[in-house]
Amino acid sequence: MTREAASRDASGARLSSRRAMRERRGAGSGIKQLPWATVIRNPFPPMQPLSADQVEAIHEASLDLLERIGIEAMGDRALDLYAQAGADVDRASGLVKMDRALVMDLVGKAPSEFTLTPRNADRSILVGGNSLNFGLVSGPPNVHDAINGRRAGNYADYEKLVKFAQFFNVIRFLGNQAVAPTDLPANSRHMDTTRANVVFTDKAFNHQVIGAGRAKDSCEIVARACGMTLEEMADRPACIGNINVNSPRKLDEHMATGAIQMAELGQATIVTPFTLMGAMTPVTLAAGLVQQNAEALFGICLTQIVRPGAPVVYGGFTSNVDMKSGAPAFGTPENAKANLAGGQLARFYNLPYRTSGCNASNAVDAQATYETMMSLFSAIMGYGNFIYHAAGWLEGGLVASFEKVMLDVEVLQHLVGFLTPIATTPEEIGLDAIAEVSPGGHFFGIGHTMERYETAFYPPILSDWTNSENWRLAGAKDATQRATDLWQRVLEEYEQPALDPTRLEAIDAFIAKRKEDIGTGEP
Amino acid sequence: MTREAASRDASGARLSSRRAMRERRGAGSGIKQLPWATVIRNPFPPMQPLSADQVEAIHEASLDLLERIGIEAMGDRALDLYAQAGADVDRASGLVKMDRALVMDLVGKAPSEFTLTPRNADRSILVGGNSLNFGLVSGPPNVHDAINGRRAGNYADYEKLVKFAQFFNVIRFLGNQAVAPTDLPANSRHMDTTRANVVFTDKAFNHQVIGAGRAKDSCEIVARACGMTLEEMADRPACIGNINVNSPRKLDEHMATGAIQMAELGQATIVTPFTLMGAMTPVTLAAGLVQQNAEALFGICLTQIVRPGAPVVYGGFTSNVDMKSGAPAFGTPENAKANLAGGQLARFYNLPYRTSGCNASNAVDAQATYETMMSLFSAIMGYGNFIYHAAGWLEGGLVASFEKVMLDVEVLQHLVGFLTPIATTPEEIGLDAIAEVSPGGHFFGIGHTMERYETAFYPPILSDWTNSENWRLAGAKDATQRATDLWQRVLEEYEQPALDPTRLEAIDAFIAKRKEDIGTGEP
Repeated sequence: MTREAASRDASGARLSSRRAMRERRGAGSGIKQLPWATVIRNPFPPMQPLSADQVEAIHEASLDLLERIGIEAMGDRALDLYAQAGADVDRASGLVKMDRALVMDLVGKAPSEFTLTPRNADRSILVGGNSLNFGLVSGPPNVHDAINGRRAGNYADYEKLVKFAQFFNVIRFLGNQAVAPTDLPANSRHMDTTRANVVFTDKAFNHQVIGAGRAKDSCEIVARACGMTLEEMADRPACIGNINVNSPRKLDEHMATGAIQMAELGQATIVTPFTLMGAMTPVTLAAGLVQQNAEALFGICLTQIVRPGAPVVYGGFTSNVDMKSGAPAFGTPENAKANLAGGQLARFYNLPYRTSGCNASNAVDAQATYETMMSLFSAIMGYGNFIYHAAGWLEGGLVASFEKVMLDVEVLQHLVGFLTPIATTPEEIGLDAIAEVSPGGHFFGIGHTMERYETAFYPPILSDWTNSENWRLAGAKDATQRATDLWQRVLEEYEQPALDPTRLEAIDAFIAKRKEDIGTGEP
Repeated sequence: MTREAASRDASGARLSSRRAMRERRGAGSGIKQLPWATVIRNPFPPMQPLSADQVEAIHEASLDLLERIGIEAMGDRALDLYAQAGADVDRASGLVKMDRALVMDLVGKAPSEFTLTPRNADRSILVGGNSLNFGLVSGPPNVHDAINGRRAGNYADYEKLVKFAQFFNVIRFLGNQAVAPTDLPANSRHMDTTRANVVFTDKAFNHQVIGAGRAKDSCEIVARACGMTLEEMADRPACIGNINVNSPRKLDEHMATGAIQMAELGQATIVTPFTLMGAMTPVTLAAGLVQQNAEALFGICLTQIVRPGAPVVYGGFTSNVDMKSGAPAFGTPENAKANLAGGQLARFYNLPYRTSGCNASNAVDAQATYETMMSLFSAIMGYGNFIYHAAGWLEGGLVASFEKVMLDVEVLQHLVGFLTPIATTPEEIGLDAIAEVSPGGHFFGIGHTMERYETAFYPPILSDWTNSENWRLAGAKDATQRATDLWQRVLEEYEQPALDPTRLEAIDAFIAKRKEDIGTGEP
């Protein structure tokens, strides 16, 4: 990040917005989208593929696993903590065994819900209960759009992706590194992406928490963006980081120290075992869920040993692999059922739940769409409080796609509309309006229609309902091609959220100092 | 239908199948698909957007509509029947008003479920409760595939479409005229399509029931295909026809006489008001549902006046129009909620439920897919016992698409897999298998995997999970392009189901006689 770029970023927010200018020029009303919601709730009961007995069976098998088989934790720090808490720790192998009572005691200390408060408190999100939060894709090494093709992740594209997430209200948090900026040094790029997150968005986001150093850096930047100290922020979590268990049964050292650091700072952690059935777990869904459950509880316990009551989320990422090739698959029936069952398990422990909207398609096509909808629908009906990868994920997570972000936003808005309750007041029932129109007539011009027609139906941002002839005359663009048009318009209409320049100066000073300290070493 | 064609059809079924020949040649194992299921049930509770009070409010408003506002029925036959039953009939306007008690009395006579038994009793389908049946697209005037483009409906393509429906087990019934064969005379083509249905498939199908003549012709053909008389078939319904109410509040004469004929023959009817909100109903969902409900009950009552206990299905087809253009929209949030609420209303009256999987896209693209999944998912979670248009519908019903049939079959198979319960036996939980693999290892080679890997996961027919490089090397085909390959393979692998040649002769004799009788007149 150059000094010039920093100065430009800061002044950008102070300038009149481009949209305001365009509106003064009368250049149109911009992209219509759903407003930001304080909270999005799922009014339906959750879908529950497991009976209470089946939940109990998976729970018991998971506790057996933790008690008798054990999970390997790497690094002295984690092993010390598990041992202090009363676990049976084998220093030679790193194998940790925890008895049932200890696990349940620790898990019981975690809160059932919490609020993440980013630098703009109006963008706070509730994580727990029947609240739903959709996140931008997290982690791909590559990026794709139809104009520029598939390319390695880079910082310029990173900025565009976070601008998309800022623009669309239905995206409620950002993933960790929507794309990896592989053109920046690996040991400090977490600060560049965190800076971009707090400069170009005012929403909550997933932090890069591989190792205590990265976790702390990221929290330091957010604290400055919030105008708070780390101590002040500990009472009002602003940061959240995802810890993957290296399935089967292994918690890597950097993951463990990242989780420990987040808990120490009172910030939130998600513990997500990487349980692809057939590869990292047995092929059966029951075994995948048992392993997911044991591994998630193992990591959750660590956060509660560090800081009882630290906000923590039960993460599920159970899908299957293609048994012919070993390639991961997403949006499969098994993945969708796991998304629902994972929610049942999280609720069994009274914990918030993280799940995902994923697909394994190579193109932004019908497969990408049906797989995404399988996973998203089950994520929603499983009460995914934190729904990862809900916009932009492609190729099983190897690519962040601009077009897919647009299509996913359309799908998410459809689903939010679907969750909106039906009003049945006498005015909505409108028997007089029905009586007003003769048999075989139409309702276009009547008062009841005129009063409501502009807001009666969800207005899509991508769907095209023109007839075939007009569609052809307009270029016969399919939805993915229209998505290419849309993301370009979004970048034009995007407005940078204001950030106090003194806070940005503090952030940049922190980053400059840390980059000097780290040099080419490990953060 | 020429005599030569008839002879070819008949002999086709007696020949050894092409698949059998291919298998003897060792040419591969063919397309893997889900097996035919005796019944597909939704194990989840239905999703219910309306509270019990809201259902009651819609019910009461509908009965108000029927009692005070009335619905127009056209034709003396229907008016006579309503009058005989005790309705208040205005002969001048055709307006029929029915009091609450009369409506509820008649609706109460209809069965809550029934079985449709086509010529192959093994293909019987249960209609009611939590059973789900998916149907081939019904009624488009045009047809499209990526090789031959968009063209007017014709008989040759009609045959291909019904072969697709026969081939895929997840398609459990055929729509009425998967495409209109506009190259055949309008007054007799219902017999050509019915003949094709009983020759090229052995599944249940929707009949063309616009007018008593067409309804009867169709039943006569099916009776011969079953080797039964119409009287014998009356105790074991084989036929089902869909009656649309011409919303708002109008039951056309041909629709009424078709429904009357089906009921007289003891065959099943579906009554589906054509309630596009904003055009044929007020813009509010509550009003759309009230009108749908009143109009559906009105037609259902007619069938019960004719024959108490006649099988009849509550049909819902409430979606919205684009208020800018008046174009119909499908798979919208409003459509999806209506699909769920319609199920609640059908269950309130203890009736089977028909709903649809629709979209309004011009291309077999992401929009076609997300709209279809919105409508299909809600159709399933609303307990749609008879789910129309579940495979092949495009352009808001103006086109039957070959590629869309393939993609929809893939989606339907995904959803059926999703509805399959999770097994949690000790073997499935497989704690020993989990213990067998070291932390950080993999499960590919272990016994637990080897015993199950071939059947553990749903095997897709279209999804491509290869990595980007291999996908590109293989031609970078998206899912729609792969669907083009698939439907060609289906036509190669399709096997004609055996039909007793004497029955086919009887059918052809009936059709020849009826075509002579009708000439160019009304059937």
